[in-house]
Amino acid sequence: MSSWKDPEIAGVRALLASRQPAPGAPAPTYVERRAAMDAFGELGSLPPGCLHEPLSANAVKCERIVPAGALDGRSLLYLHGGAYVGGSPRSHRPLVARLADAARATAIVADYRLGPEHPGPAALDDALAVYRWMLDEGAEPERLVVAGDSAGGGLTLALALALKHEALPQPAGLFVISPWADLTQSHETYRSKAGDDPMIAKDRLDESAAAYLGGLDPRDWRASPVFGDFAGVAPMLIQVGSEEALLGDSLMVAERAGHARVEVRLEVWPEMIHVWHAFGGQLNAARRAIAVAGGWMDEKLCG
Amino acid sequence: MSSWKDPEIAGVRALLASRQPAPGAPAPTYVERRAAMDAFGELGSLPPGCLHEPLSANAVKCERIVPAGALDGRSLLYLHGGAYVGGSPRSHRPLVARLADAARATAIVADYRLGPEHPGPAALDDALAVYRWMLDEGAEPERLVVAGDSAGGGLTLALALALKHEALPQPAGLFVISPWADLTQSHETYRSKAGDDPMIAKDRLDESAAAYLGGLDPRDWRASPVFGDFAGVAPMLIQVGSEEALLGDSLMVAERAGHARVEVRLEVWPEMIHVWHAFGGQLNAARRAIAVAGGWMDEKLCG
Repeated sequence: MSSWKDPEIAGVRALLASRQPAPGAPAPTYVERRAAMDAFGELGSLPPGCLHEPLSANAVKCERIVPAGALDGRSLLYLHGGAYVGGSPRSHRPLVARLADAARATAIVADYRLGPEHPGPAALDDALAVYRWMLDEGAEPERLVVAGDSAGGGLTLALALALKHEALPQPAGLFVISPWADLTQSHETYRSKAGDDPMIAKDRLDESAAAYLGGLDPRDWRASPVFGDFAGVAPMLIQVGSEEALLGDSLMVAERAGHARVEVRLEVWPEMIHVWHAFGGQLNAARRAIAVAGGWMDEKLCG
Repeated sequence: MSSWKDPEIAGVRALLASRQPAPGAPAPTYVERRAAMDAFGELGSLPPGCLHEPLSANAVKCERIVPAGALDGRSLLYLHGGAYVGGSPRSHRPLVARLADAARATAIVADYRLGPEHPGPAALDDALAVYRWMLDEGAEPERLVVAGDSAGGGLTLALALALKHEALPQPAGLFVISPWADLTQSHETYRSKAGDDPMIAKDRLDESAAAYLGGLDPRDWRASPVFGDFAGVAPMLIQVGSEEALLGDSLMVAERAGHARVEVRLEVWPEMIHVWHAFGGQLNAARRAIAVAGGWMDEKLCG
């Protein structure tokens, strides 16, 4: 589609197109991809008065982000995206800072282990270790939201399933942005949106999935929560763009969680692309989505 | 499932069970079913100060409902449920009055023609005639929401598709409660929720669909909007209960509209049943759902 109703999305698409490697160029290494993601995060600004500091949580490296308006006792565990092979607290700092600001909560961003060096379920083990640490530090689950984007959205859902297995309390809510929740890449939207999605292609995700899975079955709920049993998990908000190859993952999560009597709110944002929230400097729709999610988290954290 | 987290839903289920005809009793006639629905509506109360009056809109009988707080120029076209063979402004008056009150809008409830006396697309023709009448009377589409429940939810979606064919402007929003949007009854949730849904059974809907369709193809978008092209229709809010045989219809609508770049918000309400909003006297969840929908309509009507 060449004409968009949103006056800003074409600019973001042009920006993304300008960053594509030249045809025939060698694929970037994991080191290069991670450095590029971190550089993207370093370019963004934080809300005024927002502080951040490193910390260790049950031996997992993390970053704490404290927005100026954070309310005592409110926390957000954030699991960043990056296809399980990239991303870090640095790459996602501006995004998490804006979400934490909108939710008036202190965020802990887990620097969980990545594939291929650390195959699954290492990332989930780390997310669980950080969640336990937050409870041990006094976080009340009813004043805690877990959130994540892309692979981190899938990891958020896998964590909610893991809490059931560990008999740990659910948080107050789960907020997932464009989650990658099925590492078999099965949904029809990989094909139907292939021409529209400027960021996600099935062959690249197939590679990342293989790099993360190691010996883990792609249908194991720890890697692909769509295959898990959602009964009893916390209420969830799912935000996804209409242009995404991963649209189908959000639809499957909504279907399976809703069927299992979970409180589900699914929002499809027209014309938006994978994790558009990260383009807060370019897109009014990014700022609106963060505000809507902030309102939802605020409500859950007050409940 | 015998134990519910919601403390009130078991009471509503008991109420519904007490109204089931005795085993072996003859199926009620359409006249009896319509009278029972009207009687249910007459039992409900209206918000204080809410007025209603009959009117005729392009030769379609209607009822106007004016809540005490209605804002000038805001309107709601409401299409009631009843499987296209029953329901009326009387049967739905308390529900519509509460929704109109929450949206601070004047509602027009269409008494559209029903099957089997008036087969499809008579109901859609009437809905379209009323929409045209509202525009002719000066309603601004950006200050008009179309809403409906069950068959009326499907009719709301079919009306949005018909507006494209007629080159008429879309309204500001579409709010559908537990829509019946696929008159082929194809989705798996008819089977997976058969034991949980106390109101809707596939065999009864098959009968009603046949009674309404007459010679209309059940895959015609005018009867089953899930088979239509949603591109360009107004933003939609879908609310559905997790216990519904019709859960799948809502999932299909969200999938197809979201794929077509429509702004979609789908809410699955745990433990809730078909059009639970009608049990505002019994269920806090009904009042909350109406308040949430009222907030959404209010936002769309301000936009």
